[in-house]
Amino acid sequence: MEHSLTVWLTGLSGAGKSTLAAELKHRLAAAGERCCVLDGDAVRAGINRDLGFGPQDRHENIRRVAEIARLMNDAGLLVVAAFISPYRADRRMAAEIIGGERFIEAYLDAPLEVCERRDPKGLYRRARAGEIREFTGVSAPYEAPEAPGIVLHTASSGIADCASQLLRLVQARLRGRSASEST
Amino acid sequence: MEHSLTVWLTGLSGAGKSTLAAELKHRLAAAGERCCVLDGDAVRAGINRDLGFGPQDRHENIRRVAEIARLMNDAGLLVVAAFISPYRADRRMAAEIIGGERFIEAYLDAPLEVCERRDPKGLYRRARAGEIREFTGVSAPYEAPEAPGIVLHTASSGIADCASQLLRLVQARLRGRSASEST
Repeated sequence: MEHSLTVWLTGLSGAGKSTLAAELKHRLAAAGERCCVLDGDAVRAGINRDLGFGPQDRHENIRRVAEIARLMNDAGLLVVAAFISPYRADRRMAAEIIGGERFIEAYLDAPLEVCERRDPKGLYRRARAGEIREFTGVSAPYEAPEAPGIVLHTASSGIADCASQLLRLVQARLRGRSASEST
Repeated sequence: MEHSLTVWLTGLSGAGKSTLAAELKHRLAAAGERCCVLDGDAVRAGINRDLGFGPQDRHENIRRVAEIARLMNDAGLLVVAAFISPYRADRRMAAEIIGGERFIEAYLDAPLEVCERRDPKGLYRRARAGEIREFTGVSAPYEAPEAPGIVLHTASSGIADCASQLLRLVQARLRGRSASEST
């Protein structure tokens, strides 16, 4: 059960969550660790395609993802979850479902201006044009974590650097646990 | 990706799905294979606790479980799913979501009379008393598979024997795949 860990990436659209999740998965694989990436876009195209972006549906989106992460962690699979997850209460619920000792909250802290300038999917442009309602950072709130496990400054640091920081934290958690399990 | 396989156990309540899933997991573990059991009761207490037992909710139950199995298979984790899953169309949908080449439909074929006599959770008694509506086999249909991957006669055979049959099939599928992958 040494891989029963969920790394939860939270931050604005365009902060680099999916990119960082893919890079972390790649590095974990290189280190011989298998993981599953749960990504907002993929999950919303699959299991959660019945859900929208209002607060209630965002809550249900996060609840289901947390339950899936818990099942995967129970099966010994490391999970990297990449979700805007803008509400503190929803992230707290996710930590409770998954279990606090298995949960690392990683806050991708990038200024809205930077994310909006990147606008990798053209969503900010559409949100400003009123074509997307309840868009986080524009017409819906983002509640930054108050005490995240790690803060990654994805605007000033490169993805490679952020992935290194995150990998070190994950490996320290996995090592720390196996050390405490062997005592 | 050699463990991208979902063994889908379908059958009446009391046919032995959960018991067989646990036994298969145990044997797979003994053979060095890790798997995740997705069980109707557990899933309905967790991710699908918002769903009931009408046809629409049963459909949504199976849809979500299939999406979870797909994510787990994508991550290289073998899945054993234990669900009454009474409708052919829903099981077909599950196979489509997961991918036919990854899906083994195992039909636990036990007569209703035997399942009702066992009644491990007292549900048949409650269904006959009208306390549970839309109970499969009593007040809701069970559509038996027409061409399952394997039929297990859990009334006439013991769980150990059924688990052996199922394990042989799973191992043959895993071996067959690695053989074809290496050519």
